[in-house]
Amino acid sequence: MKKLFIVSTSTIYGKPYLSYLTEEMTSFFEGCQKVTFIPFARPSGISHDEYTAKAAEVFATIGITVKGIHEFDNPLDGLEWGDGFFTGGGSTFVLLNELYNQSLIEPLREAVLAGKPYMGTSAGSNITGMTVSTTNDMPIVYPPSFDALQLIPFNINPHYLDPNPNSTHMGETRETRINEFHIYNDVKVVGLREGSALKVEGDRVSLWGELPARIFEQGKEAKEYNSNSDFQFLMQS
Amino acid sequence: MKKLFIVSTSTIYGKPYLSYLTEEMTSFFEGCQKVTFIPFARPSGISHDEYTAKAAEVFATIGITVKGIHEFDNPLDGLEWGDGFFTGGGSTFVLLNELYNQSLIEPLREAVLAGKPYMGTSAGSNITGMTVSTTNDMPIVYPPSFDALQLIPFNINPHYLDPNPNSTHMGETRETRINEFHIYNDVKVVGLREGSALKVEGDRVSLWGELPARIFEQGKEAKEYNSNSDFQFLMQS
Repeated sequence: MKKLFIVSTSTIYGKPYLSYLTEEMTSFFEGCQKVTFIPFARPSGISHDEYTAKAAEVFATIGITVKGIHEFDNPLDGLEWGDGFFTGGGSTFVLLNELYNQSLIEPLREAVLAGKPYMGTSAGSNITGMTVSTTNDMPIVYPPSFDALQLIPFNINPHYLDPNPNSTHMGETRETRINEFHIYNDVKVVGLREGSALKVEGDRVSLWGELPARIFEQGKEAKEYNSNSDFQFLMQS
Repeated sequence: MKKLFIVSTSTIYGKPYLSYLTEEMTSFFEGCQKVTFIPFARPSGISHDEYTAKAAEVFATIGITVKGIHEFDNPLDGLEWGDGFFTGGGSTFVLLNELYNQSLIEPLREAVLAGKPYMGTSAGSNITGMTVSTTNDMPIVYPPSFDALQLIPFNINPHYLDPNPNSTHMGETRETRINEFHIYNDVKVVGLREGSALKVEGDRVSLWGELPARIFEQGKEAKEYNSNSDFQFLMQS
């Protein structure tokens, strides 16, 4: 059964890396002794080794061994090695490009569909959707496609930000941008505020965290959904 | 001689569309009776006709007739018709994609190099650079390339925003994103704050407006440049 933990942000303000998530990670990765880390998004250009060490340190506290997929001569062995996967944040474009370059899109997708739990934060969450077209990231490299892992039949907008009513800045708000996406695309978009996540188990999806999610559908007004809401409509593409 | 007016934003807070620019536009488009408007970026999905009407209304106040390039059966006739060009803001990805779809990149570039003045705002400024990789826009459509008009040997980041020291939001700042761009690219980037513009005449470039520009180079600390600074280093690619 497909198992995903799609997290808006790895870090909330003033807290250490992943710390607000470790309790949930313990149950999410239950039964996993080894997790393969996908470090390709490289926030601020951190090396694959450094980024992997940062993730491994946190996973060690919950008794899980982490290796970076770049440590394997053949990355497919890395997908084989892990009982589950964690993809960290950074640049969605660099991440997706590297997955394409190493021909990992399809094998990673298959491994997750076969039941290995997948956790992503930020860019790592973006790529679980249909496309990366609702990322907030700067397009610093040109990937061969915007198509993502398509593990869920909708798109994610992580770090979702509400419009600031006091702003005098004329750049588009997040909501304006997502509405523009819906002029050209009919894929639903879940705006996940920082501190929120989606949990997917098979064809069930639910919201994790205290804050409501904002869901955008083509031709409809955006709506707020809290953790008691029924999210199943998201699973119908 | 190549003449460009590369503007961060069409509109500043609380002012009508283009109003803070009309005086400068009068001298920039001196000698032009007809300007071809490129409406492809379609902010909030406004139609090509509506967007053109909006631009035409402002240009009429300075005695210039505007037609949208979409009004011509053959868009090359639209490039021929205008004594100059104005490309409005909206989605950089939709704009660039449409220029590629209609095979307009090269002919537009040539018309500007041949001396027809080009003014762009926001997305229309982004595309004057080497690539659109430093846009802030959401990648809502997949263009055939990120390569832009390459009328200048550097990139633009319009609507440049300084980090907010009081923010608790964990999404990347603009500066972080541009620094990440420089991990993979060695193209210089000019962060143009709202209310600022670059003026290019042949191989001379200068800053227009009250605010300093922030210039990012690979492997260097970002630096502030005001309108009295020498910008010529930007023209060496």
